[in-house]
Amino acid sequence: MFDLSARAQEIRERLIVFMREVVAPGEHEYHAAVAEPGQRWLIPPVMEEMKRKARAAGLWNLFLPDSRHGAGLTNLDYARMAEIMGRSLIASEVFNCSAPDTGNMEVLHMYGNEFQKRQWLDPLLAGEIRSGFAMTEPDVASSDATNIRCRILREGDQYRISGKKWWTTGAMDPRCKFFIVMGETNPEAKPYARQSMVIVPRDTPGVRIVRPLHVFGFDDAPCGHAELAFDDVHVPLGNLIYGEGKGFEIAQGRLGPGRVHHCMRLIGLAERALEAMVARAKSRIVFGHPIARHGMAQEAIALSRCEIEQARLLTLSTAAALDKLGTRGARDRVAMIKVVVPRMACQVIDRAIQIHGGAGLCEDSFLGQAYAGARSLRIADGPDEVHIMTLSKMECERAVV
Amino acid sequence: MFDLSARAQEIRERLIVFMREVVAPGEHEYHAAVAEPGQRWLIPPVMEEMKRKARAAGLWNLFLPDSRHGAGLTNLDYARMAEIMGRSLIASEVFNCSAPDTGNMEVLHMYGNEFQKRQWLDPLLAGEIRSGFAMTEPDVASSDATNIRCRILREGDQYRISGKKWWTTGAMDPRCKFFIVMGETNPEAKPYARQSMVIVPRDTPGVRIVRPLHVFGFDDAPCGHAELAFDDVHVPLGNLIYGEGKGFEIAQGRLGPGRVHHCMRLIGLAERALEAMVARAKSRIVFGHPIARHGMAQEAIALSRCEIEQARLLTLSTAAALDKLGTRGARDRVAMIKVVVPRMACQVIDRAIQIHGGAGLCEDSFLGQAYAGARSLRIADGPDEVHIMTLSKMECERAVV
Amino acid sequence: MFDLSARAQEIRERLIVFMREVVAPGEHEYHAAVAEPGQRWLIPPVMEEMKRKARAAGLWNLFLPDSRHGAGLTNLDYARMAEIMGRSLIASEVFNCSAPDTGNMEVLHMYGNEFQKRQWLDPLLAGEIRSGFAMTEPDVASSDATNIRCRILREGDQYRISGKKWWTTGAMDPRCKFFIVMGETNPEAKPYARQSMVIVPRDTPGVRIVRPLHVFGFDDAPCGHAELAFDDVHVPLGNLIYGEGKGFEIAQGRLGPGRVHHCMRLIGLAERALEAMVARAKSRIVFGHPIARHGMAQEAIALSRCEIEQARLLTLSTAAALDKLGTRGARDRVAMIKVVVPRMACQVIDRAIQIHGGAGLCEDSFLGQAYAGARSLRIADGPDEVHIMTLSKMECERAVV
Amino acid sequence: MFDLSARAQEIRERLIVFMREVVAPGEHEYHAAVAEPGQRWLIPPVMEEMKRKARAAGLWNLFLPDSRHGAGLTNLDYARMAEIMGRSLIASEVFNCSAPDTGNMEVLHMYGNEFQKRQWLDPLLAGEIRSGFAMTEPDVASSDATNIRCRILREGDQYRISGKKWWTTGAMDPRCKFFIVMGETNPEAKPYARQSMVIVPRDTPGVRIVRPLHVFGFDDAPCGHAELAFDDVHVPLGNLIYGEGKGFEIAQGRLGPGRVHHCMRLIGLAERALEAMVARAKSRIVFGHPIARHGMAQEAIALSRCEIEQARLLTLSTAAALDKLGTRGARDRVAMIKVVVPRMACQVIDRAIQIHGGAGLCEDSFLGQAYAGARSLRIADGPDEVHIMTLSKMECERAVV
Repeated sequence: MFDLSARAQEIRERLIVFMREVVAPGEHEYHAAVAEPGQRWLIPPVMEEMKRKARAAGLWNLFLPDSRHGAGLTNLDYARMAEIMGRSLIASEVFNCSAPDTGNMEVLHMYGNEFQKRQWLDPLLAGEIRSGFAMTEPDVASSDATNIRCRILREGDQYRISGKKWWTTGAMDPRCKFFIVMGETNPEAKPYARQSMVIVPRDTPGVRIVRPLHVFGFDDAPCGHAELAFDDVHVPLGNLIYGEGKGFEIAQGRLGPGRVHHCMRLIGLAERALEAMVARAKSRIVFGHPIARHGMAQEAIALSRCEIEQARLLTLSTAAALDKLGTRGARDRVAMIKVVVPRMACQVIDRAIQIHGGAGLCEDSFLGQAYAGARSLRIADGPDEVHIMTLSKMECERAVV
Repeated sequence: MFDLSARAQEIRERLIVFMREVVAPGEHEYHAAVAEPGQRWLIPPVMEEMKRKARAAGLWNLFLPDSRHGAGLTNLDYARMAEIMGRSLIASEVFNCSAPDTGNMEVLHMYGNEFQKRQWLDPLLAGEIRSGFAMTEPDVASSDATNIRCRILREGDQYRISGKKWWTTGAMDPRCKFFIVMGETNPEAKPYARQSMVIVPRDTPGVRIVRPLHVFGFDDAPCGHAELAFDDVHVPLGNLIYGEGKGFEIAQGRLGPGRVHHCMRLIGLAERALEAMVARAKSRIVFGHPIARHGMAQEAIALSRCEIEQARLLTLSTAAALDKLGTRGARDRVAMIKVVVPRMACQVIDRAIQIHGGAGLCEDSFLGQAYAGARSLRIADGPDEVHIMTLSKMECERAVV
Repeated sequence: MFDLSARAQEIRERLIVFMREVVAPGEHEYHAAVAEPGQRWLIPPVMEEMKRKARAAGLWNLFLPDSRHGAGLTNLDYARMAEIMGRSLIASEVFNCSAPDTGNMEVLHMYGNEFQKRQWLDPLLAGEIRSGFAMTEPDVASSDATNIRCRILREGDQYRISGKKWWTTGAMDPRCKFFIVMGETNPEAKPYARQSMVIVPRDTPGVRIVRPLHVFGFDDAPCGHAELAFDDVHVPLGNLIYGEGKGFEIAQGRLGPGRVHHCMRLIGLAERALEAMVARAKSRIVFGHPIARHGMAQEAIALSRCEIEQARLLTLSTAAALDKLGTRGARDRVAMIKVVVPRMACQVIDRAIQIHGGAGLCEDSFLGQAYAGARSLRIADGPDEVHIMTLSKMECERAVV
Repeated sequence: MFDLSARAQEIRERLIVFMREVVAPGEHEYHAAVAEPGQRWLIPPVMEEMKRKARAAGLWNLFLPDSRHGAGLTNLDYARMAEIMGRSLIASEVFNCSAPDTGNMEVLHMYGNEFQKRQWLDPLLAGEIRSGFAMTEPDVASSDATNIRCRILREGDQYRISGKKWWTTGAMDPRCKFFIVMGETNPEAKPYARQSMVIVPRDTPGVRIVRPLHVFGFDDAPCGHAELAFDDVHVPLGNLIYGEGKGFEIAQGRLGPGRVHHCMRLIGLAERALEAMVARAKSRIVFGHPIARHGMAQEAIALSRCEIEQARLLTLSTAAALDKLGTRGARDRVAMIKVVVPRMACQVIDRAIQIHGGAGLCEDSFLGQAYAGARSLRIADGPDEVHIMTLSKMECERAVV
């Protein structure tokens, strides 16, 4: 069921070994480095070392279906890799597979012109630079794309960009060199043909990082999430991606595989939370028995297993549908996983926290940060409510057999 | 994903047509007949007609993996058939695929001797008789098999059976000709080697139908569920199945595929409930809009879709695991679906009831009876709590990779 | 907290004794009588005997705040009586406190003219006749009162009524002598001034009982719930209650106290379900311990206690608000209990069913019928969704302190 | 219902005004000060200013039932004050009503000798110093008090204390001058007579703050939560509170009112979260309507209102029971609120986060930190599971009426 190709199976096995031998120890070093005073927004050298090793091992750009620049894996094959990477909060970057770079590389790969590819895609593929995606805005409900207020005005041979954006993940990272910015170019067009995407180099005058944003109390340093201001920023017309009014279309295409990646990473994370829950429940004694012998803990463990299995199967079936039917044909399943998986992950991680007691709340476990990450995905890339509306509409339109 | 074999695909298509052309109209006639005064516990002739047609169409004994007596389908292939049949509360019988006959046929097929096969299995396979399974007892928590009190004592060349049983489905059916009875033969043996199974013809002296049982207010006539008394019932030693002390082992083997069947039928039923929910929500106007435009109904529809899809994938994966790993290897997944699917079905059907308003509560829809059936499966074949304990233990024993 | 008056306290104590000494044994006789062949829709004589005793004991019409015709109790005082009565599915009638008679008596008491009071209210107060309330219709979503299609046309000195109604509780009861029917008199008026209520004697030509309705298989005989047809039924103009266009207003006034009664009865029922759950959990052994020692059962018991306590306090606070602020001022709380209490009761009863196993599903316990009753109250008197909308609107209108 | 005394009503009104006029602006200044580089673990002067004003206004030590040292309010009266204070994450301290000082003052007031009162209670009552409570340990499940490993050995005229503690709230605060430490003095005694409490001045040699602990990324500076080490710490015998072996008894007495305070504060916080949810839902437009017009948001708002009201009534009834029946008689209700209220608060705050979108996740709202606080109370003072076990046992022991 959802069997991997032989090649993917082989890669997956090497990935597991690499995670254990390189990422696990590196992770400790990484977190320790970031925790040092004054080092919060610097990239620990161990990250670049791990990246070099991963690239040398051929565990690089696994997300990219294109076999010339990436690994040439199907969505289904890659999903099983994302699950493994998702067990660590920093592993995706090691394999050049972390958001938002993956989505940006896909966009440039599919819609970028030759110049854009050479200038921005090539160094991204090489892991030399990083990038941001500036779509969500603080002042409007951005889940309704027609609300977007950022303006991209054509002025001679330039676009002038003015607006506010936030939740641009990775923007705090010193290696981040450009943003893909979504804004309104054609206010008179039909609602979904008003927006366009342009490339804005980070050092362009008028680009300003307003502040880093926290999720619960986590700053997710050193990559972080930022609020950005674009104050009359000018870029050449050639920085437009694909065409004016194509912003919404690009965004849609970008989101299908990206949501599968997010969800599979959360499944890996939930699986790790369940392992931690079980380990704790077996080792901790309360009222004369290990916690694992108490009925309420058994329920927490068993239901978590049931929910993870179901979520994984649904997400793999979505990846398979993307491979077979494309983004449009898989739209219903993509909406389903977007609703199901973050909720499942929150629930499983929350149960793990409860069984850990105080150790689950604090920095002694990965669970608090994992919860924050899972919780934020019920809002990022469209809140649950929007996907539920979409799903309900599709269900009502479906012809009943 | 979980693709059917070509042959199964072809059978499934014919099954769908047969459901529409034969079962759908027959179902109305059937229910009307049973509702007539004085006809409650008689089998409407339309049932036997439909059975003849199904047999003639080769849609017969599809559940039996053995290709000489049954269709030779895998568990995975048959699961997709059970889903179709499950959309109707009476369809399984039409195809000679209804519980408890299916389980009893499996038991006789696997463990019966030649005489037992000729005497009881052949007419069951032919759909000429029906049978009951007498395991659960009213006075003890039967989910713990060591609690079973019914005694099966060897006396010369006979067994003497004394005890009470209940929830023997199908026992009210006039075509029911024998029961497989679980009881204690070896009280001194190890806990799980104490029980045995014997065949007890229904007309044996001392066998008594105490009363029909209702589920909520439904008697599920004309098949029903009965409380039975075995008052010093004597049967020949040859009626023992497989061997003394093998009762628990047989029960375990019987339950794997049976649980997949139950769950796939519930998935078909939940799917039909969702279709009904959508149809109602689209056609009923409240506060100026169809119910389907109201957010809470959208949530009911979307979440139901998500839950059904997940439950289906989990159950199909369980069927595939049974095919690949056998009952023992699939034990964890069988426990998972037993916990997940009846809860899911209850929830989906309950939402459908809510959207139907009063029509969902009463006999104008199938939903009330469907709910009762789904709810009873959280108790039958082991209550949720037992499967949760099993699952938690297996999870704790699993070696962490 | 929510203390009873001394008089109410005294009545309550006598009520508890009466429940134990008269109703408990009478209940068995009652159910046995109704279960006899051919006796399903007849009133067992024991009911009238119990009523006589209750009246003689001064436990009569306790619901009616008016002290001349009723007990003169406040809503808060009566709420604690309704809770006691609600423990039995038939007790309210014993004390002449059962729906829909109570609501109809209130309507006639508040809005009826002298003739109507003499003709219909007096015998209702005396427990000599019963009555029905015909509001909900099968073909429209009646929770939106403007959908109502039943027409009440003035023709000379009569009203002509034509329409379909259903879920008229008590209509199957041979003692039921009249219906209060809601229908449209003024289609041109503002939406909530279109409806009126008229009294229709049951034996008026054109009144037809189409069929009894079941709730989850229960017919709730001998009172039952009916579908009714009004085929050009004529009644004198004097049968109009209060005034043309006042139907909605009367309905609103009727529902405040009625919902408190329903909810308090459900709380009594849930309390009894919890007692049954505890008794079963203490006496039944599984895997070497009473069920009450297993963690999942402990959770079921403890959460049920928490939910019942909260629901009771909320309902008592609603009764107190009705006393202090009137129906309008208590509107938000009435909506809250209508959402909270039936859900709570369903959940508690469902847990009790689970702990009872098969005995909880069938007629060996009151739980199945109790569940059906609680579940139907998530739909009757306005489905949850409507009350949620109301509550949300009120919350949004509330000035933030 | 749960009416306040006239005096309490008057105090409450002044408290509300003080919150608006002094605390609201002071809160901004406070948070800004703590956010300054290098100021994280210093107390902003505005706190001491607000304290002075509160004391001058007679809004001081309101929690203490003793009318000589405190306000002489009942538990029920004070509960309504705690709710008001709980709306702000820092307000309790302003009124000298913050945990763990309140609990420590109660302990010293009830069980301390004259010397202890003069030395430690008086400056606490005056708000001149702060204190910590060191009970929970990192290496064992401390919810089972018999697990406690910290040793308090009598050596001549001193006690020698050695052990590890964590989650000592307030320990990072420079004003914190002593800890009440729970440890084992009598290992041979009966399980609940083994523990004692001693006063350990913070500057005693061997007392070490190991590190501050975070809750979901929040350090809750400048008060914080600490891990502590006691490495052969010596204190005079006179620092023992009440008597050897009395530790468990003191802990139990301390927890009744303390849990009511925690719960009422959470109710105030949930109320504020609901207000924020409503304000956001009314002002934010999505798909052409304010969020408040969308059904799923309406459900979030309405259910939150229902849950808050129920939780408040339950907690007030618990406070009333404490006043009337004492800690022992109110034990069941104290357990109920401990299970119900933090879950309710988590749920309401989580819904508010969802409706706020990204603004709910980050520091632009109080919601993230509020969630962390509410979530930690499902673990602190005994995890849910322990209270559920207690409740279930009490329910099973209760004589059924």
